[in-house]
Amino acid sequence: MTHPKRRGRRPAGEDTKAALLSAARAVFTEQGFDGATVRTIASRAEVDPAMVNHWFGGKQGLFAAAIQLPVDPEQIRMTVHNSPPEEIAERVLRTFISVWDDSSGGGFAALMRSAATQESAAKLLREFIATTFGTRLRELGVDHPDLRVTLFGSQLSGLGLVRYVLRQEPLASADVDTLVATIGRTLQRYLTGDLGLGGE
Amino acid sequence: MTHPKRRGRRPAGEDTKAALLSAARAVFTEQGFDGATVRTIASRAEVDPAMVNHWFGGKQGLFAAAIQLPVDPEQIRMTVHNSPPEEIAERVLRTFISVWDDSSGGGFAALMRSAATQESAAKLLREFIATTFGTRLRELGVDHPDLRVTLFGSQLSGLGLVRYVLRQEPLASADVDTLVATIGRTLQRYLTGDLGLGGE
Repeated sequence: MTHPKRRGRRPAGEDTKAALLSAARAVFTEQGFDGATVRTIASRAEVDPAMVNHWFGGKQGLFAAAIQLPVDPEQIRMTVHNSPPEEIAERVLRTFISVWDDSSGGGFAALMRSAATQESAAKLLREFIATTFGTRLRELGVDHPDLRVTLFGSQLSGLGLVRYVLRQEPLASADVDTLVATIGRTLQRYLTGDLGLGGE
Repeated sequence: MTHPKRRGRRPAGEDTKAALLSAARAVFTEQGFDGATVRTIASRAEVDPAMVNHWFGGKQGLFAAAIQLPVDPEQIRMTVHNSPPEEIAERVLRTFISVWDDSSGGGFAALMRSAATQESAAKLLREFIATTFGTRLRELGVDHPDLRVTLFGSQLSGLGLVRYVLRQEPLASADVDTLVATIGRTLQRYLTGDLGLGGE
């Protein structure tokens, strides 16, 4: 930390952003997304709370930046919570493909790098996924909600890996409707379909 | 390269292994697995061909080491080619889980690191998967064989990512029968089931 310790004295923009991202990872990890406040994070970073809005558009954007999530987390939460159960997978898949394709895969690579190298980012990502999807699945009353969330994550992240990192054809260039028909169906089965575990 | 250029003069063991791995990646990439010979690779590495058997147990083992594949590639090829069509996914899945679990996930992480950082290793891995699975799927006469191979790869690699790198529970600790029931069924659909693309 090279910026002054004295409160209210702001370092240059990039320093402010870096300090906020670092503080955000720490506070989100300690207090969770809902418990963490803009005020606490700004205080930890020793910058004015208004800087969170200025640089990240608010808590949602700061969280997304902290874990390199390429999508507004609130948009994902709304999609998961407001879609008819049988359409959740397709809508989430279309959202991610759209955003990742727009960044030529850089968005997915950044998310993976962040999760693979920063345990705090990995923990935040796990919690965001578990909370967002887990809450909805519990509302729907399906069996094995936590297992379903991780199965969903395994197929979505594997798609990212093959399409954007390994760039293996023809999956790397497949159009979104092909992905929805093939992978979307898997994702939907993981969320609300028969898992094949029997007796439940 | 620090070892002597003169043929027949062998550097120390670790140098020999490193030279062979480097030469193997180059020759396998240029000539493919079947075209590459032990003699050519040893010649490129400027070591005695007997060193390939000594250090890697032969061409199969050298290939596996070159791309950090945790399994004997010939074992995978035999499994894919000799299993009844409807059992390929389960058998391959059980093989990989067994090997990856034994290495506490280190084997999967090494494979990913290798593929993500060395384009030659990524290319070899892509070709090995495409050849092994693609050949069998063409024999079986299914539609979209190349797309099926990459879909299979996306779910298998995503399982590795969540189970061994992100270590997200409960998937990280799920027993192999749970994985076969849930993910094995997806993998089998990708190989021989209805892809949902319609009209084919």
